[in-house]
Amino acid sequence: MLTLLGIVLLIHILVPSSAHPEDLFLVKAGRFFQPLSAETATQEFPIAPELVELGRALFFDPRLSFDGTVSCSRCHQPSLYGTDALPKSVGVENRPNPRNAPTILNAALQFSLHWYGDRTSVEDQAAKSFLGPASFGNPDFASVKAKIKAVTGYEEMFAKAFPSEKDPVTQQNCGKAIGAYERTLLTPSPFDSYLRGDTKSLSAVAVAGLTEFLEVGCVSCHGGIALGGGEFRKFGILRDYWELTGSSEVDKGRFNVTNDPADLYVFKVPGLRNVSMTPPYFHDGSVATLPQAIRLMADLQIGKKLSEQQVHSMVHFLDALTGKLPAGYAVPPTLPPGGFQAR
Amino acid sequence: MLTLLGIVLLIHILVPSSAHPEDLFLVKAGRFFQPLSAETATQEFPIAPELVELGRALFFDPRLSFDGTVSCSRCHQPSLYGTDALPKSVGVENRPNPRNAPTILNAALQFSLHWYGDRTSVEDQAAKSFLGPASFGNPDFASVKAKIKAVTGYEEMFAKAFPSEKDPVTQQNCGKAIGAYERTLLTPSPFDSYLRGDTKSLSAVAVAGLTEFLEVGCVSCHGGIALGGGEFRKFGILRDYWELTGSSEVDKGRFNVTNDPADLYVFKVPGLRNVSMTPPYFHDGSVATLPQAIRLMADLQIGKKLSEQQVHSMVHFLDALTGKLPAGYAVPPTLPPGGFQAR
Repeated sequence: MLTLLGIVLLIHILVPSSAHPEDLFLVKAGRFFQPLSAETATQEFPIAPELVELGRALFFDPRLSFDGTVSCSRCHQPSLYGTDALPKSVGVENRPNPRNAPTILNAALQFSLHWYGDRTSVEDQAAKSFLGPASFGNPDFASVKAKIKAVTGYEEMFAKAFPSEKDPVTQQNCGKAIGAYERTLLTPSPFDSYLRGDTKSLSAVAVAGLTEFLEVGCVSCHGGIALGGGEFRKFGILRDYWELTGSSEVDKGRFNVTNDPADLYVFKVPGLRNVSMTPPYFHDGSVATLPQAIRLMADLQIGKKLSEQQVHSMVHFLDALTGKLPAGYAVPPTLPPGGFQAR
Repeated sequence: MLTLLGIVLLIHILVPSSAHPEDLFLVKAGRFFQPLSAETATQEFPIAPELVELGRALFFDPRLSFDGTVSCSRCHQPSLYGTDALPKSVGVENRPNPRNAPTILNAALQFSLHWYGDRTSVEDQAAKSFLGPASFGNPDFASVKAKIKAVTGYEEMFAKAFPSEKDPVTQQNCGKAIGAYERTLLTPSPFDSYLRGDTKSLSAVAVAGLTEFLEVGCVSCHGGIALGGGEFRKFGILRDYWELTGSSEVDKGRFNVTNDPADLYVFKVPGLRNVSMTPPYFHDGSVATLPQAIRLMADLQIGKKLSEQQVHSMVHFLDALTGKLPAGYAVPPTLPPGGFQAR
């Protein structure tokens, strides 16, 4: 982990002093971020059109949940930029989810999924959701399979997506299809154009915000292609997070997964793309606005009290991370009708 | 009310015997149905773009419900052709709705709303939903108003939609805006092209189904522009409906509104546009498939046992009532972010 001082020194060492100041700054920024690339397929998780089409249908289908009320899109709504706008999500039968639903947009760019990072990929996350008590709530995959087979049209879609398999309606394949779809949910933003050299894509105040973002040290966690999503960090380095968030409960973070005291209050660092569109903030949705979230992070993690001007310009920079919804998400699919099976 | 014999006689009297059989049949069909017109605005309920834009946002916004989980679009999902695919809908806090959610598509064409017809217009229905215990569940409109005012952006939209009003965030205006939006949710279908003279729009088997639809007598209730939606009728004229639907509870219909024994088991006749896309069927969602719904209606209402061929062709005719989703519904709006207030 680079210290703040290390980052500042690195910038001074690496940036040549003869270039145009604007280009220089771009070179500097380019060391910490990468523009969004269309390539999110991996050898293990390919993106084929038939797979994406199936995944898109499954993503929007509430009939696959225990009581028919929960689809992936219930907590990841297009109208709300892939969130549900709730502090903490709600699953079947009004069961409370212990944490906030992060946006599904660009989620595939992260090194692991969930606030605890206890899902290895979007595929793993999607597959396990079907049996999550506070999400889809199904007792077993056999009941999901029965629901899928009851809808005329799905079996054909599975056969097309997994042509070499004899019985492709499996939990793993549902995860693969939804994951393939989610790998297409990328939102190129003005900041990406900026990183590619179009310096006009950011306003002067947004560039000032980017400068603050680098100099204050936010980038030490929120860098890379997703501006985060690449590591675990303790939330509340300099003081207990709940002193500032006002959280009603204390969440022990990855400690709950590993039982390692070093993981107390450790969470996956969230990516910041579209952050302006996805309040409320943090693992428990305890903070309502972006300026407040920025202030609080600087205080908790770096021990800095930001000026209003710093917060203002950083908000403008973060606004420049908002991209357009991909067409396959902005427009929900028409699902094959029928087949709901009462529990 | 025309008797079946009356309808058959009327057809024989009104249709001239010298024209081409195809045209003749079209003339006959044109006496019972009207093609979809774009005009659903009324003097009382106009459609202005600012009104529709506001209504579209409110329609998709779950933050306006008591617990933040219910929007109009939760029970009227674009992916499911304006329904939720449940036998009976579910509102805030998992509260069961006593009846099935009919599609919102073409709903404005009906003479009244809800299965009991106890809502006078789409505007009336939408406005009252905010306080419905099994829908949005808000205790009063003051709490809805607070939720609306907490979202930066909504007040400006209300000001644009109701420019002459000083304090436009009212329950009635929410209803007017959502209603104006819903009046745009029309789905022209192949049957409309047929009625306008393009006889190629229906397949031969669909025309056979239309013939059955007229001759069996379905049209006596399911006529007009909405193929229904224009009157109340008893469900189960010749025998108790629950003998055939297998309903787990007996719903007394409009009797529950009027206390008039003549209204026992009386419901608003649903419109049939997009019926193929909106199972399960009837006020309690007790029947899963369209063929079964057709068989059962002929038996219950007209006392006829249909042949498999009759059912088959009628399904094809009803398939021709499926239209394309309007763009303003197929693509959910991006909502202004933020502002959710915990209850």
